[in-house]
Amino acid sequence: MADKTLETLFHETLKDVYYAEKKLTTNLRKMARAAQSPDLKAAFEAHEEETQTQVERLTQVFELIGKRPRAKTCDAIEGIISEAQEIMEEFKGSPAHDAGLLAAAQAVEHYEIVRYGTLKAWATQLGLDEAVTLLDATLQEETAADEKLSALAESVVNAAAEKAA
Amino acid sequence: MADKTLETLFHETLKDVYYAEKKLTTNLRKMARAAQSPDLKAAFEAHEEETQTQVERLTQVFELIGKRPRAKTCDAIEGIISEAQEIMEEFKGSPAHDAGLLAAAQAVEHYEIVRYGTLKAWATQLGLDEAVTLLDATLQEETAADEKLSALAESVVNAAAEKAA
Repeated sequence: MADKTLETLFHETLKDVYYAEKKLTTNLRKMARAAQSPDLKAAFEAHEEETQTQVERLTQVFELIGKRPRAKTCDAIEGIISEAQEIMEEFKGSPAHDAGLLAAAQAVEHYEIVRYGTLKAWATQLGLDEAVTLLDATLQEETAADEKLSALAESVVNAAAEKAA
Repeated sequence: MADKTLETLFHETLKDVYYAEKKLTTNLRKMARAAQSPDLKAAFEAHEEETQTQVERLTQVFELIGKRPRAKTCDAIEGIISEAQEIMEEFKGSPAHDAGLLAAAQAVEHYEIVRYGTLKAWATQLGLDEAVTLLDATLQEETAADEKLSALAESVVNAAAEKAA
């Protein structure tokens, strides 16, 4: 297996993240519909639009390494999203619903942040300068999306505590 | 379902993270055995010891809320760990093995960082001061573990590129 180099790893991880982003587009729509707080709903809708651009950037990175865009099942995102679905089902209509949903969305963001950070580092090592620029653009957006959710968290959690009181 | 409050959500998430930490103890041992780089091996071994303390802190948090420590399958960590296992199998003996394994470990760390961040925020809201202290201690360790991996990443990735050359 000595032929499995950093290029192989980069390509495999790219397929994993491509799957994750595509899966997310659909799920962010569900999460936006489920959110009770109008602010949280708006945050999910805005991020769904961003995610479509991020998928497009990934297809450009595939082109840069001379590969056809292909997705490969990403077990991590499947697991994280199944936790989000569990929250939506088990906490539907309850005061803590949005707090749980927001936390699940932050778990998604952190998975993406760590993956794009890794892909960017590998692209740098491989001298793929255009890919570095594309991956960094998405990394910045994911970090900003996570910060937006953190800023929303306090009011969403306070609302949960007040509703339950 | 109006009885599902922030307390319920805190308790459910605690069970999820408890499962994740226990699962991780075993898997960090496997990852330490698989690592080719002595530094990466040492980092996994050190973090396995920390993880045992973190499990112990979680049992204390369960006590603080008057519950018995119980684990609940965490789909997210199952998914993230299955990606780590895939790397260990598919890249075994190849130059990029450690770079992939290190990246998988960082995905684990980020999942823990986001979950402990959330639990700490909820504990603060719920006025569980002792729990906040315990959760924060682990959060600091996880953040430090992630930084240690980031610092190692460059040399591991360089080694991968050199071996392949």
